[in-house]
Parts: sequence; C-alpha cells; structure tokens
Amino acid sequence: MHRHALRFVRTLALVFAAGAASAVAHTQRDLEIAAALRDRALEGTEAYALVESLTVEVGARVAGTPEEARAAQWAVRELTRLGLEDVRIEEFPMEGWVRGPERAEVIAPFPHPLVISTLPRSVPTPPGGIEAEAVLFDTLESLLAAPVGSLDGKIAVVTYRTVKTMDGAGYGHAVRARFVGAIEAARRGAVGFLMRSAGTHLNRYANTGTMRYAEDVPKIPAAALSPPDAAQLERLARHGPLRIRFETRPSLPGTVVSRNVIADIRGSEKPEEYVILSAHLDSWDGGTGALDDGAGIGITAAATALIAALPERPKRSIRLIFFGAEEFGLLGARAYVARHRERLGEYFIGNQADAGGDLPYAFRTRVADAALPAFDGIRSVLGPLGILPGDNLATGGPDMTPFREAGVPVFDIEQDMTHYFDVHHTPSDTLEQVDGRKLDVNVAAWVATAWLLANMDVPLRAQPQPASAPAAD
Amino acid sequence: MHRHALRFVRTLALVFAAGAASAVAHTQRDLEIAAALRDRALEGTEAYALVESLTVEVGARVAGTPEEARAAQWAVRELTRLGLEDVRIEEFPMEGWVRGPERAEVIAPFPHPLVISTLPRSVPTPPGGIEAEAVLFDTLESLLAAPVGSLDGKIAVVTYRTVKTMDGAGYGHAVRARFVGAIEAARRGAVGFLMRSAGTHLNRYANTGTMRYAEDVPKIPAAALSPPDAAQLERLARHGPLRIRFETRPSLPGTVVSRNVIADIRGSEKPEEYVILSAHLDSWDGGTGALDDGAGIGITAAATALIAALPERPKRSIRLIFFGAEEFGLLGARAYVARHRERLGEYFIGNQADAGGDLPYAFRTRVADAALPAFDGIRSVLGPLGILPGDNLATGGPDMTPFREAGVPVFDIEQDMTHYFDVHHTPSDTLEQVDGRKLDVNVAAWVATAWLLANMDVPLRAQPQPASAPAAD
Repeated sequence: MHRHALRFVRTLALVFAAGAASAVAHTQRDLEIAAALRDRALEGTEAYALVESLTVEVGARVAGTPEEARAAQWAVRELTRLGLEDVRIEEFPMEGWVRGPERAEVIAPFPHPLVISTLPRSVPTPPGGIEAEAVLFDTLESLLAAPVGSLDGKIAVVTYRTVKTMDGAGYGHAVRARFVGAIEAARRGAVGFLMRSAGTHLNRYANTGTMRYAEDVPKIPAAALSPPDAAQLERLARHGPLRIRFETRPSLPGTVVSRNVIADIRGSEKPEEYVILSAHLDSWDGGTGALDDGAGIGITAAATALIAALPERPKRSIRLIFFGAEEFGLLGARAYVARHRERLGEYFIGNQADAGGDLPYAFRTRVADAALPAFDGIRSVLGPLGILPGDNLATGGPDMTPFREAGVPVFDIEQDMTHYFDVHHTPSDTLEQVDGRKLDVNVAAWVATAWLLANMDVPLRAQPQPASAPAAD
Repeated sequence: MHRHALRFVRTLALVFAAGAASAVAHTQRDLEIAAALRDRALEGTEAYALVESLTVEVGARVAGTPEEARAAQWAVRELTRLGLEDVRIEEFPMEGWVRGPERAEVIAPFPHPLVISTLPRSVPTPPGGIEAEAVLFDTLESLLAAPVGSLDGKIAVVTYRTVKTMDGAGYGHAVRARFVGAIEAARRGAVGFLMRSAGTHLNRYANTGTMRYAEDVPKIPAAALSPPDAAQLERLARHGPLRIRFETRPSLPGTVVSRNVIADIRGSEKPEEYVILSAHLDSWDGGTGALDDGAGIGITAAATALIAALPERPKRSIRLIFFGAEEFGLLGARAYVARHRERLGEYFIGNQADAGGDLPYAFRTRVADAALPAFDGIRSVLGPLGILPGDNLATGGPDMTPFREAGVPVFDIEQDMTHYFDVHHTPSDTLEQVDGRKLDVNVAAWVATAWLLANMDVPLRAQPQPASAPAAD
C-alpha cells in the first residue's frame, strides 16, 4: 500500500479507537452537559467576586497565623453558601515562622542600600547582622563548582536571572537556588546566603519563598535580593571587592496550627471515588495573594459551585480542598495524605489550580496509557477555549505531589505563566493583577473537565495484569 | 482665484520664506556638521555609561544630602574628563527634609496594611500617628466640592487614577492633588491627607514627590498610597466606614546646602550668548534616579561632549547646567536665575532633559513668531530620527520655568512618556529601566540641535518695535 494511504488508514483506526473509547468514557448527554457548563461559565461566574472577597475581607494569610485561620472561616462560609456539602476544617501542626526586621546594604566599593526579603524558614542573623566580603556566582552551578572552604567567612550571592517562559520552566530552574543555595553555600564555609529573586520582574522589591536546610551543614541566614539590587551588585563588583552587611530577624514561635478546608459534592453512584479539585488558601505576606492562590481559590470554587447548582449529582464525588501551608512546603497536602492514606486508592483523579489567573492553553494527564483515548471527549469540549491536547506527564499542581506519589492519577489545565512570575511572591500580588474574564475562561475549563471526570466510565490506573501475561515490550 | 489654488500659492510662499530664513539661519556646512554629529551619536555615545557610573558610584542623591554633594563631585570629574571648560559648583541654601519611619493601616471595616510614601515637605504626624475616619474622593474636584468643616477631624483621601499619555499630560493632571491636596483638605477641617500615587503603575509601592502648604491653613501630614492600596480603600469602603491610622516621622533639619554644577563650551564669536542644555542632578530616595534624571544627565553630557570633541568651537557658548534640588521645587534653577539675572537677557535659548530615556518624537519651540521659519533646518536634521515638527508652546522642561519667566526662549525635544510614569518617583527607578540605544537617539537629537542653535544667525526674541509701528492684530 502506498505510504500515505497506509498512514491514512492508521489514522482512521486511531480515530475509531478513540471514538469507541470516548463513547464508552462519556455519554452524549454528559458531553452536552459539560459543554453547557462550559458555556454557562463563559457568561460570567463568581470567581472574581470570590477573589475580591477573600483579598478584601482577609487579605494576606500566611500559614499558621490568625489571618490564615480567618481565611479558613471565610472559606467555610463561602463554600456553604455555594451549596457544597459537609464543609469542614482539618487542622494540622506546623513549625511557625514570622518575618521580622530585615535590612541590607553594600559597604564597599560604594555605599548602596539593598532591598531584600528574608526567605521563610531562614534562621535569623545575630542582632546587628553580619558583615562580610561577598562572592558572586552567576548561576547555582557556579556556586556548586566552588571548592569546600573557598567561602569561609563570606556571604555567597547567586545573581542568576529567572528566564521568562509560558510554562513556568524558567522559575522551576531558578528556584533551585532558593531550595539548596543556603545549604551549598554553608557547605563551602559561607556565613550568609543571598540570591537574586526567583522572579521575572525588574522592580525594586524582592520575592519571598521558602528555603531549606540540611541536617549535616550549619544553618546560615538567607534572603532574596530585588532584581535591580542583584544587578547592582554585579556592577559594583567591577569597582572593587564587595562588602555587604545584612540583618534579618525573623522569629520562630515553635509549633502553630494550619488547616485544610474540605467540601464535597457527593456522588450519586460512586460516592467513595473522588475527583479532587484544589487550590491553596495560605499566601505570602507582601501582597494579598490575589493570584497566588486567590485565583485558584476563585476558579475551583466557582467551578464546583456550578456543578452544585445542577439538579443532578455526578456519579462520583467531587471534593474541593483548600490546602493550608502550601507555601511552607506542601504541608497541608502532606497532612491530608497522611490522614486519608487508606482511602487514596479509591481516589479517581486530582488537580490543583495554582498557576495564577491567565488563560488556559493545554490539557495534560498522568494516567495509565490505556486510559488516554478516553480523554478525547474532554479535549473536544476544551478545544473551543483554546486549550491544546497535552502530554501524559501532568504534575497535577504542587499540592498534588504527595497524592501523585501515592498513586493518584492527576491532570493539569495548564495556564499561561508568561507574566505570572512578574508578580508571584511579591508585594504586587494584589487584585489589580486579576482579570475576571480570564478567570471565567478557566472556570469554564475546570467545570467541564470536572463534570466529565466525575461521570466517565474508564479506569485511569494501570490494571493488575494476570500473572501469565507477557511482559510489555 | 480658486480656493485650493490660493492655498497652494500661500503654501509655496511659506516654503520660500522658510527656505530663505533657513538659508539665513544656518550655513550648509553647519547643517552638514549637525547631521554628522547626529549620525556619530547613533553609532554609540557615553550616555548609558554615564548613567551607570552615576547610579553605581553615587546612587540615590536627595537634594541637600551628602549624596547630592558626592554627585556634584562626580559631575565635576566627569564633565572635566569630557573636555568641558570652567567646570564649577554654585551652592545655594535650602530647607532640608529627611524621610523618617512611615507606616499606615486600615483599622476598619477589615484590618489591612497600607503601603505609603511620605510626601517630602510634609510635617510629621505626632509620635504614634493619627487615627481617624477616612473620607474618599474620586478626584481632586470632588475634594474641592466638599464644604468647609465637612472633614473636621477626618483623613481626606483622593483616589484619583493617573491617566497614561504619551506627553505626560495625565501626570500633570494627577499631580495637582499632590500640590494642593493637603492645603484643600486642611481648609475643610481634615487632620491628614492621603492620595493615590501620581503614577501609572499597579505595583505595591507608593510614589514620592513634593507637596505644598499655604500660610493661611494648618499644615497636616501628607502621604501617597500605592495604587493597589488606594483601590483597596475603595473596595473596603463598600463594607462599612473606613478607619485609618498612619504615622509619618520625617525630620526637618533646617537650612542645608544644595548646588548646581555648571560647565561651558566657550563660543568663538558670541561667547556671552548661551545655549543652555540642562538636567537635574538630585534624585528621590527610593530608586537610584536612573531615569529621573540620570537619563537627562547622560543625554546632555554625552551631547555636549561630542561638540567639545570637535576641532572647532560653535559661535555661541553652550552651557551645561546640572541643577540641584529640582525635586524640591526647582530650587537650583531659581537660585541660578536669581544669581545670574542681569545676564539672562543675552541667553539665546534653553532646554532641560527631564523626561526619562524613551525615544524623542517631537521638536517644539517657544520663540518669537518671526523666528519660526528659521527652525526648518533643525527640523530637517531631526526628521530622520522620527521627530515630528511641534508647536511653539514649548516649556523647556521643569528647570527652565524661571528662565522662561525671565524671557529666555526655550525648546523641547519631546520624549515618549507613555511608560515614564510607571517608574518615575518609585523605588524601581533604577538602571534596569534605561535603554542605552534609546539614549543614543536622544543624544543624536540634542547634539544636532545644540550645534545648530549655537551657530544660527536669527534672533529668537521679539524685536523692539519702532514706536510708530501699528499694533499687531
């Protein structure tokens, strides 16, 4: 057969296979309900009003603080009002951390004030701060290449610039310095660690975000520099040895309480199987957390509310979880998984909306290969929203990490993050950054997807193979 | 004659008149030198390096501080190096003002921190600050419409949003609230004045900039709010009466010293006639004053240096003035005019570059009508840079105000200010905002203009009329 004709027949076969799987996966009626929910969302949802209400009535809500507790009460009130069932709070303990005074300056070669943000989890400097020669590294790799002992008594500074990308990969690469920089600097003898903010803006404020320590190296204080200040250090260093003083005085109040807020739409046929939608309720302290993760709160709550308002229930349960303490290292998600581990085997699929409020552009999964054709129905309903078919390497979002590790399938509705890291973890993460019309497009994507997932009739996990089956090749 | 034919003849007559005046105004050789200077600048100038040097070696340089004094020393060093003559400093006294601690918060209807910037010249609040009910006004006009006594004991807040325009008119309209807001609020009984920053960004920092008091009303403390905080006040006010606390503790050290830096290229034929190029050396304190007015410093110094490097001198003198204390109300310019008033009658024309670093787009004058055709030569040399012919209503720039009022003709090379007020008077006014290639286009415009002005052979001021001449109609 001619090569092109052969390809055509193969394509047809795939279409038929997909069509068959899709037909099994969804009834025509469910596809129509999903499209109707999608179009209803495009007419306008509560998403923006929810973000406004949260950021005006509560504002910033750092994990483990009274403000986060107020946010949880706000969520209980709003999710109850929106018709969700069994709305409840699950508390968990965490190690508290409270930002304190922070200041920094260049002493030589020319005096220059530095704008910094203490990295949460960092130990404080001594009162009065530390003053030392600074050594600049243009990338994390340059720091890793420095020999042990080469930074004795010095302040290590990584000046790496975050690359702007649509999928957030640039942030993913830059944030490694926040996670391991203080550890690797201390391993080489440094007494302090500074880094250019992991963020794509050029404004003179610094991005916050947690850092980590290792058990086997000294804990040294760590802070982020505003992007212009990091660039200024590079310029100053051309004039002579850099000498920096910085003082950061956070406090460590010991064990405090954070909490997850959970609400359900109970399924009509398989109530024990959950489709998890989620966002995180805690925020950082500089802004009001309108994008991170107010937008995710608004999108998922509005999407769930549209389903709750239907005269019928989906077959599976939809569980909406607003995690606490995501910013301190997925603490709420880990607490949830620890508490509910024995039931996770029944969870159908999960997702977190935590990528801001810009438009969605791709749908991805992480499910058994055999289940992939079953997603054609979802892809076809999402297509008119400008959402491309994506790969099967979804992460599900940050708080889905422990779920994914426990074997729960996940999906991503990828949002355009080109501009997200201009604002993320900065004081400018306020309502001004949120576009209500774009939130509605996201709600349209989430609600249609949630309905189809809660009603689809295909297993998403790899099925146990008969012992005699041949190994896959 | 047919109307269109008549218009054509009139146009021709204007062209001939212009051509004739232009021929008188400039020799062909001067036009060629100007074009060559323009093209030389486009190949690359020192402008960006000068801005970098000033902002790295000095940084922020508030009027009347040791940093401004260091900036003046920097200017003397650089202008001498660039080949200018008789480089000198002229000191003048000013009332000092030093920013102190500043904090603000909403008490009710929901607690919310506010990001503010004390407006320079403002008196301090009492220690501990003031707490009062806040009354919002959407425009300055709304405040002006409030009756005397209606704000007794309250904090007046103008939430007006600055309009983004290419020519800066939006800022000009918004800044009126900074100039008269505290006066008009106090006149109506207010105990404090807050305003949304005069600026077009949506970041969570507030713009600084001087305010004014009147003799006949109480001096009340005044501060600017970050744009997101001003909008948040509007949202909070929908939930109930607004109660605000704010504390600003600037200090008033009494009389301090500021200074102008002056440097010349001495003219070969009319050395007592000056073409004034200028910028201002002082900056605000949040950023490093890279755009305001580092860019003007770089543009005018680089342009003057290109002329200083020529083997011949222009006929008139070119005087470069870096004014001090522009930000506190044109204090350096007023001191200069007071000191040099008796010679101003010989000044040929003046200009200040103080509109940032974006591209130039129009050339304007304020000269006698009879002199207008003489500017066709300048317009033709500037045309290839994308610079349009403008009107005869030039301001000359802020520090030319007292010169203009004393009768000195002025010109503007208008720069695109669409994005300038995103940064102006904010902490983000740093080198990151400066594009060296765009600075060079400005240098090209300034250097060609300066050469032609210093050599043109047409008077720019209205000539004394014979007593018998009929009044102009």
